[in-house]
Amino acid sequence: MSSKLQDQTIAIIGCGFVGLGWAIVFARAGHPVTLYDPDTAVLDCAHARLATSLQEYAAAGLLDEPVAHILGRFTAAPTLQEAVAHAVYVQENSPELLELKQDLFSRLDACAPPTAVLASSSSGLTCTDVCGRLSGRHRCIVVHPANPPHLLPAVELVPAAFTDPAVVERASDLLKRANMVPVAIGEIDGFVMNRLQAALVQEALELVEAGIADADAVDAVVRGSLGLRWSFMGPFETMDLNAPGGFGDYAERYGPGFARLAGAESWPQDAIARVDSAMRAQTPLDALDEKRAWRDRRLAALSLHHRNAEAADRSKENLLRASAKP
Amino acid sequence: MSSKLQDQTIAIIGCGFVGLGWAIVFARAGHPVTLYDPDTAVLDCAHARLATSLQEYAAAGLLDEPVAHILGRFTAAPTLQEAVAHAVYVQENSPELLELKQDLFSRLDACAPPTAVLASSSSGLTCTDVCGRLSGRHRCIVVHPANPPHLLPAVELVPAAFTDPAVVERASDLLKRANMVPVAIGEIDGFVMNRLQAALVQEALELVEAGIADADAVDAVVRGSLGLRWSFMGPFETMDLNAPGGFGDYAERYGPGFARLAGAESWPQDAIARVDSAMRAQTPLDALDEKRAWRDRRLAALSLHHRNAEAADRSKENLLRASAKP
Repeated sequence: MSSKLQDQTIAIIGCGFVGLGWAIVFARAGHPVTLYDPDTAVLDCAHARLATSLQEYAAAGLLDEPVAHILGRFTAAPTLQEAVAHAVYVQENSPELLELKQDLFSRLDACAPPTAVLASSSSGLTCTDVCGRLSGRHRCIVVHPANPPHLLPAVELVPAAFTDPAVVERASDLLKRANMVPVAIGEIDGFVMNRLQAALVQEALELVEAGIADADAVDAVVRGSLGLRWSFMGPFETMDLNAPGGFGDYAERYGPGFARLAGAESWPQDAIARVDSAMRAQTPLDALDEKRAWRDRRLAALSLHHRNAEAADRSKENLLRASAKP
Repeated sequence: MSSKLQDQTIAIIGCGFVGLGWAIVFARAGHPVTLYDPDTAVLDCAHARLATSLQEYAAAGLLDEPVAHILGRFTAAPTLQEAVAHAVYVQENSPELLELKQDLFSRLDACAPPTAVLASSSSGLTCTDVCGRLSGRHRCIVVHPANPPHLLPAVELVPAAFTDPAVVERASDLLKRANMVPVAIGEIDGFVMNRLQAALVQEALELVEAGIADADAVDAVVRGSLGLRWSFMGPFETMDLNAPGGFGDYAERYGPGFARLAGAESWPQDAIARVDSAMRAQTPLDALDEKRAWRDRRLAALSLHHRNAEAADRSKENLLRASAKP
């Protein structure tokens, strides 16, 4: 296999929002991208929708080359077979229906070159469920993006027990070179991203149900505190900076209180030790003050960014309002 | 009471991280600020620490006037009584110990002008617990900031049943004019911010405990997906855009699955209806596509911001590394 990206074709199977986001991810990195959708009307619109998204993306200053170059990397394929014929990597984006995905992967396994990685954007069904019976199951993996994929870098890599570790590595390398942040995790219902989202939203809805806060209050609290921090530090990194002795110290001081708020007896002990070691491997205790200063600089810069973005939104609204006057 | 900010003194009681953050919030808005801390060593350092924070804040482009002007608004008071003597609003920031706070509020109630608002930064103890026995309890309220207060706009306003609604309104107006985002909520253990944080972190720790993800994986997933979205849209606004028919439609399609992931039977029905109404009051259904385009523009601009901030971090590290060479 050539190591040049222009020789490494990516096949996108299913061209809804997620599929087209993936198409942009791979094409902007330099890959030729073939597109297939069983609905020919969807496939016919794909090029125009990609052009619109790429123009907006370029307008934000995020493209290093003309939109036309990237558009030139897309080819719509009339059949599944032609879409995957020369692919090194296939990204499947079909509805979350078990039998549909099982059938699709069995066709992909039959049509794609034997060395191609077969990846599913599944947000719920696991690789074990979808691909367990295939002869090529060793090359199958879930590669679950956030939505939209071309605007959010995190990607969950979720191999089954039967997935070849070399396949995990190849998928990871390919995604990193495409400026994504692949994160390998174990198989579990909902994976990590949606389980975390589910936990926070369940609590939020219960607060609304109990009349403690209305929807706008919940959104405003998250936007103005947790979300700002979590957009450049994860939840553990955040807590690591909020006690003099780092995460372990934080867990001792505040863990019991936080567990009580979450309706749990305690924070799990092994997890506390593992998170603390991971944090210390990143930042020694005597460098925490410096990292707190970094956090504050990043928060200040982020405040300025959002302030400018909101001012731009307002001036756009005012322009629209002014131009709507008779 | 004069409506000019320069006539409205704010007293900061307790000058740790939170107290000094509040001091910056009120001084940058134009208020004279008196500072008091029972530990004279802490009070002696306060001015120098404020100067450092303000210089960093100015360096980020966030100040509209010279640092010296703002520093000129601070006065260290030798006693609690002198600190609050002319205050229109007192912000208390002492350790989370019930008796200590009760005693402090009883002194504040005795010393502060009868019309002054008495606000506590308490993150756990409620106004009911701390101020229930005071004759001036009607003017007491919890005003809980995120940390650090001068870099995160969200503030939880948590009145007790005995708090005068006019006091909630005065605190809210004062905070808004100081560029904060006050959010009124009902009294509950942990308030909203920490309950939401507790729910997400409990799930994250349980995933680490089960070996599904390590600490770095959890942080990377949150940073690269949920955190980016939640830094300018709340969790409900986010979901409202992710189904064709808005939040109600989202709840029907995905609510049962999300509830299952959170270990709950279902999403609470009244809350679903309330959140859906709140979302429709913000954005009519036929304007959702336009809002999705806005979300994508904001996400693209945010990506560019973080990319530039990370590049700046790296070049700073390289400079330090180069200058450390012999």
